[in-house]
Amino acid sequence: MSMGRILCAGLGPGDPELMSVKADRAIRGARHIAFFRKAGHAGQARRIVEGMLAPGSIEHAMEYPVTTEIAFDSLEYTETLARFYDLWADHLAQLAETEEVVVLCEGDPFFYGSFMHLYTRLKGRVPVEVIPGITGMSGCWTATGVPITWGDDILCVLPGTLPEARLVAQMREAEALVVMKTGRNLPKVRRALAEAGRLADAWLVERGTMADERVARLADLPEGDYPYFAIVLVHGQGRRPEIDA
Amino acid sequence: MSMGRILCAGLGPGDPELMSVKADRAIRGARHIAFFRKAGHAGQARRIVEGMLAPGSIEHAMEYPVTTEIAFDSLEYTETLARFYDLWADHLAQLAETEEVVVLCEGDPFFYGSFMHLYTRLKGRVPVEVIPGITGMSGCWTATGVPITWGDDILCVLPGTLPEARLVAQMREAEALVVMKTGRNLPKVRRALAEAGRLADAWLVERGTMADERVARLADLPEGDYPYFAIVLVHGQGRRPEIDA
Repeated sequence: MSMGRILCAGLGPGDPELMSVKADRAIRGARHIAFFRKAGHAGQARRIVEGMLAPGSIEHAMEYPVTTEIAFDSLEYTETLARFYDLWADHLAQLAETEEVVVLCEGDPFFYGSFMHLYTRLKGRVPVEVIPGITGMSGCWTATGVPITWGDDILCVLPGTLPEARLVAQMREAEALVVMKTGRNLPKVRRALAEAGRLADAWLVERGTMADERVARLADLPEGDYPYFAIVLVHGQGRRPEIDA
Repeated sequence: MSMGRILCAGLGPGDPELMSVKADRAIRGARHIAFFRKAGHAGQARRIVEGMLAPGSIEHAMEYPVTTEIAFDSLEYTETLARFYDLWADHLAQLAETEEVVVLCEGDPFFYGSFMHLYTRLKGRVPVEVIPGITGMSGCWTATGVPITWGDDILCVLPGTLPEARLVAQMREAEALVVMKTGRNLPKVRRALAEAGRLADAWLVERGTMADERVARLADLPEGDYPYFAIVLVHGQGRRPEIDA
């Protein structure tokens, strides 16, 4: 019978003030904190909570064994990553027999979140609670200063990793668009937007809500490299009550 | 030259603990609080902040002049509502010349939020800041205990007010689905899900994250009336690293 539990705290889009009151309290009170990061890096999740951890709290840095050295669709990649999640799930489950462990997760944990890989392995073994967070995309559209969806607008969220033809088809159908996971996919995303007639209305937002956020029209930017977490947006223009002059 | 400003606080999905630290602080410190509500009702936004307002704070209840008595696509409806937003925008702009006014908005203000109608009228006249919030849909998929999107999943957010054929087409294309604004549209949404072969995987979540939340398989529910803010979800099943036994 487990006395502890796993509590996953959604961190929101990056500004620590944008995490929920509930996540803020959980993190400040935690004795055990776990978070994913690339080996050799501080890690974005850990950076967001800088200055918030209690004295004496124990940090569990879960360092990814691979990132981009192996092709992501290879069997080796899948097996290496699966084993990594299995081992950490075992370790956290053991800790959670007696302790509460707070796992950090950027954005909203159930929306493309890294924690989901632990969640499916932990559920049913120990008590697990998830605190939702403000998504990175909400932070980005707020940063543009323009609402994303009005009235009957459809919003479509597209991973930039998808084949170009599928991106084009969806970009033609939905009024509002969010493209996640851009980075090295950005040239393809840009071509797909142009093909769908949406490039002129597309924005690129980097590090939305963070001190160094950048908001720009995609068409104005030179081709080049962009951070993996840059998000592309096209705002909906749906129905709204206005009196024409 | 304006000394005050308008600050819109995203309230999140309903549980007051799920609003951001920044929104929480703004609301507790506010001298002027404004919120929309149906005439004769307490209002959901006001209900979420119950117990949080400072003694002596001044409440501005912005009561909708129409809700469902007039057809929403009629000229009369559009004009009545437009005039209502115009008047309140004028009133808040005047207040914001000397005071800070905190406007409450459920969910995330720029995502189908009621505040957007004031925002477009206030922007450029007085300083306006928007604090994003956790969307109602995040609260709902967290309540199901199942992640909504994995890997390359497309997420499509559909207003239930759309024509049935358009709902069916989008329900066939996207791996993960969210249908907002269900209520009286639920029979149509249910038919569209069945037509697209997605009904068996659909969930209905009412009042997600609130004390009286209800989570059910849509196919298990009797036909009937559902609250306007019930959300229908279909979870994505995308790529994830697992070792098959």
